[in-house]
Amino acid sequence: MDNYDLEKIDTRAPSSTDKEKTAKIIAELDDLQNMLYAESKHAILVVIQGMDASGKDGLIRKVFGNLNPQGVTVHGFKQPTQEELAHDFLWRVHLHAPAKGYIQIFNRSHYEDIIVTRVHKLINDETANKRMKAINDFEDLLVKHNNTQILKFYLHVSAKEQHERLEERIHDKTKQWKYNEQDFVEAALRKEYLKAYEDCFENCNKIPWTIVPADQNWYKEYIVADALYTTLKKLKMQYPGLKK
Amino acid sequence: MDNYDLEKIDTRAPSSTDKEKTAKIIAELDDLQNMLYAESKHAILVVIQGMDASGKDGLIRKVFGNLNPQGVTVHGFKQPTQEELAHDFLWRVHLHAPAKGYIQIFNRSHYEDIIVTRVHKLINDETANKRMKAINDFEDLLVKHNNTQILKFYLHVSAKEQHERLEERIHDKTKQWKYNEQDFVEAALRKEYLKAYEDCFENCNKIPWTIVPADQNWYKEYIVADALYTTLKKLKMQYPGLKK
Repeated sequence: MDNYDLEKIDTRAPSSTDKEKTAKIIAELDDLQNMLYAESKHAILVVIQGMDASGKDGLIRKVFGNLNPQGVTVHGFKQPTQEELAHDFLWRVHLHAPAKGYIQIFNRSHYEDIIVTRVHKLINDETANKRMKAINDFEDLLVKHNNTQILKFYLHVSAKEQHERLEERIHDKTKQWKYNEQDFVEAALRKEYLKAYEDCFENCNKIPWTIVPADQNWYKEYIVADALYTTLKKLKMQYPGLKK
Repeated sequence: MDNYDLEKIDTRAPSSTDKEKTAKIIAELDDLQNMLYAESKHAILVVIQGMDASGKDGLIRKVFGNLNPQGVTVHGFKQPTQEELAHDFLWRVHLHAPAKGYIQIFNRSHYEDIIVTRVHKLINDETANKRMKAINDFEDLLVKHNNTQILKFYLHVSAKEQHERLEERIHDKTKQWKYNEQDFVEAALRKEYLKAYEDCFENCNKIPWTIVPADQNWYKEYIVADALYTTLKKLKMQYPGLKK
């Protein structure tokens, strides 16, 4: 579908934005998160997906780094362990679903189970389709049975920008720890990754994805912070007052 | 629906059975469970529901007590904790879903979230319906994404037999620890409980329920052991042989 033809979707910001705007939004997030925690009626799940070097870690640090860690947690999903593989693919994900009052950030997520696995042909289309159905049911459970707001972001980075960042990891001493030979192999599979993502966006869009132009850090920080701000504002939260 | 009119369904065994048959089946279960564990391809979930004094604990001891505890585990669900209540109702259940190779027994289960809660009007019909839909999706996940065989048993005991057993708890020193004043209050709500169960059987029957006449212990032990035996046999399991 044209909607999700990623090669046609810009990876750069559509316009310049006042960068101070983002700082102001983040400052307001602090209060809103405090109210979310105090009220404990809603849960927030922020899913961050994107290829290597699309800027997931930096984004999380910038947007969520100043919030109260008591109510904001990050979970990164790595390759599943033997114990995790002995369960359905959502078992380890459900365990980390946010409690009411909390913001949970997924740095990579259950979506890897239909992305990287698919690119490397560890699963076939039939399994991918069954998993996408299961993901929709699972997100429905979180939304309807725990008042969860789910925000899903795909950080969309150009091949050129991605390569520059991967190269930088080799030369910048503070970034060498992130370097992994395999990253270039994965980057070469760009076409396959984009295809898997496009299929995912088509089939798991009951809760919509935001495709974030991600070549410039300031812009993706703005988009994610602003989306979270808008979501929290809409909840019309209130401090509960004295306990009766 | 007449199918599930519990007051019309017998609580006593339809015929007498050779009790040694059950002992033989249980002996065979031991081998089958060992193969299940060795092969680690399938998971088994046994859900045991029933009113107070319907014989859940005794059944579990008799049918599963001689199997290898390494591969057979029981989880009893009590009133949810504050932490559990801060998540969707299936969160704590999913955590205890069986890994491949294991038999997991639920002594009470996610079904309490549409039974006891409904009888006591803690949830309305709309919430109950949403939960039943979520339960169906959840069981579908376990079946399709972790090769889980789910066996669901409702221990159907008559009002008379239930009262006798509750009385016995007062007078038998080895059973007094089980006595709870509230049990008689709950037993008096029999009509409401049966109604909630009937609705559950109608709406959560994609994986069928077995309604077990439960006034006689030997019969329910036979029914459950035999159902598990048949299920395991159908898996056509094999010992994996030497690792390559």
